[in-house]
Amino acid sequence: MTAQEPGDTPAVTRPADPEHLAAVVDLLGLMACAELLAFERLAHDAALAPTIADKAEVSRMAVAEFNHHTLLCERLTELGVDPGVAMEPFAEDLSAFHRRTAAGNWLEGLIKAFVGDGLAADFYREIAVHLEPATRELVLRVLADTGHSEFAVDRIRAAIAADLRVAGPLALWGRRLVGEVVTQAQQIAAEREGLTALIVGGADLPGLDLTEIAAMLDRLTKAHTDRMAALGLDA
Amino acid sequence: MTAQEPGDTPAVTRPADPEHLAAVVDLLGLMACAELLAFERLAHDAALAPTIADKAEVSRMAVAEFNHHTLLCERLTELGVDPGVAMEPFAEDLSAFHRRTAAGNWLEGLIKAFVGDGLAADFYREIAVHLEPATRELVLRVLADTGHSEFAVDRIRAAIAADLRVAGPLALWGRRLVGEVVTQAQQIAAEREGLTALIVGGADLPGLDLTEIAAMLDRLTKAHTDRMAALGLDA
Repeated sequence: MTAQEPGDTPAVTRPADPEHLAAVVDLLGLMACAELLAFERLAHDAALAPTIADKAEVSRMAVAEFNHHTLLCERLTELGVDPGVAMEPFAEDLSAFHRRTAAGNWLEGLIKAFVGDGLAADFYREIAVHLEPATRELVLRVLADTGHSEFAVDRIRAAIAADLRVAGPLALWGRRLVGEVVTQAQQIAAEREGLTALIVGGADLPGLDLTEIAAMLDRLTKAHTDRMAALGLDA
Repeated sequence: MTAQEPGDTPAVTRPADPEHLAAVVDLLGLMACAELLAFERLAHDAALAPTIADKAEVSRMAVAEFNHHTLLCERLTELGVDPGVAMEPFAEDLSAFHRRTAAGNWLEGLIKAFVGDGLAADFYREIAVHLEPATRELVLRVLADTGHSEFAVDRIRAAIAADLRVAGPLALWGRRLVGEVVTQAQQIAAEREGLTALIVGGADLPGLDLTEIAAMLDRLTKAHTDRMAALGLDA
């Protein structure tokens, strides 16, 4: 919250600069859309669960994503923007991403949940530093609620321990997923200049944006490799 | 809550009679499983939504079902029962029900959500009267959170207003759904005697159970017909 007159109800804080506001709306729309589609995909992959208890656990992860979506939509509404309108520009690209990376079995679904959860947390941590206080606070709230993938980690480790031959295909799948994420991110970054500038914190240095995005994607990929290694998988 | 010694922390209330406890566990397992699969199916049907905003609304209905599932599982855990174990006996039958009644398009999915929401609320209202206080309180909490289908009603009415020809096939679809629900309910009632006795409140009159179940299904079907008529559809 920014400083208020004593006794005031806190007003909605919003970026004063219209270009900056547009970029924040783009970012919130992207994140709200990504969380909604992550929800949808995880709920869909719950159908692959071997038991009803496993199905309930994956569904719980999906609901956590939906709750993030709701928080992001609330902030958009607070800023006077219809969440549906803010999400729409990203819906087709992100839906196509999920169609390209549809899990073929239960373990692939778990790896996708684990990879997605980790990348989302790292991304939120990266962007939080560049945001104005109200949006940063929201992103940090969402970030604090990530990390629902311990269940996925347990199940993946157990499956590898039970049959080492599953490790190779799962490692390949993890590499393919992160490759698709990077490709998708570069495409969105190239199409949405204001958003890109906001994410890398370089609104005053537009020429540097794509280089900075590449550097950020390198950091995210490195963290992903470490997570996959911790799972016993080459990334 | 039942009466406690003064100063006591309220203990977990549970039916004293082991047969009654087993029937309550069966009922909670059935409801928890039904809510989880309703969640899964609604989240799946969200993929049929024409816009990202519609997808978000259907997903919100799905999440409400999941929250019911969570409440029911918490009560099972409180009773010392693993929710996965309590749900398992119903998982295959209810999954098969959803496969038989998979929505073929957006409007069919909305009708299914509307019909399911209404039947669930009526069922919860019917059974609440026969339950011991702690379970009744839980069922009434879940009941108070049903009725998320106004969105579905709005969209169905708008679709019928825009093209009267959709009404006939949707009315047929609604009839088919309620027929499948009744068939499924009769099958579960025939298989689980203790549960059936609990639902109709006739644990001391086992011979009457199936007749009483039939009478309850008649009341539920009648209420369904009224809801469909309010929607402008013959049921």
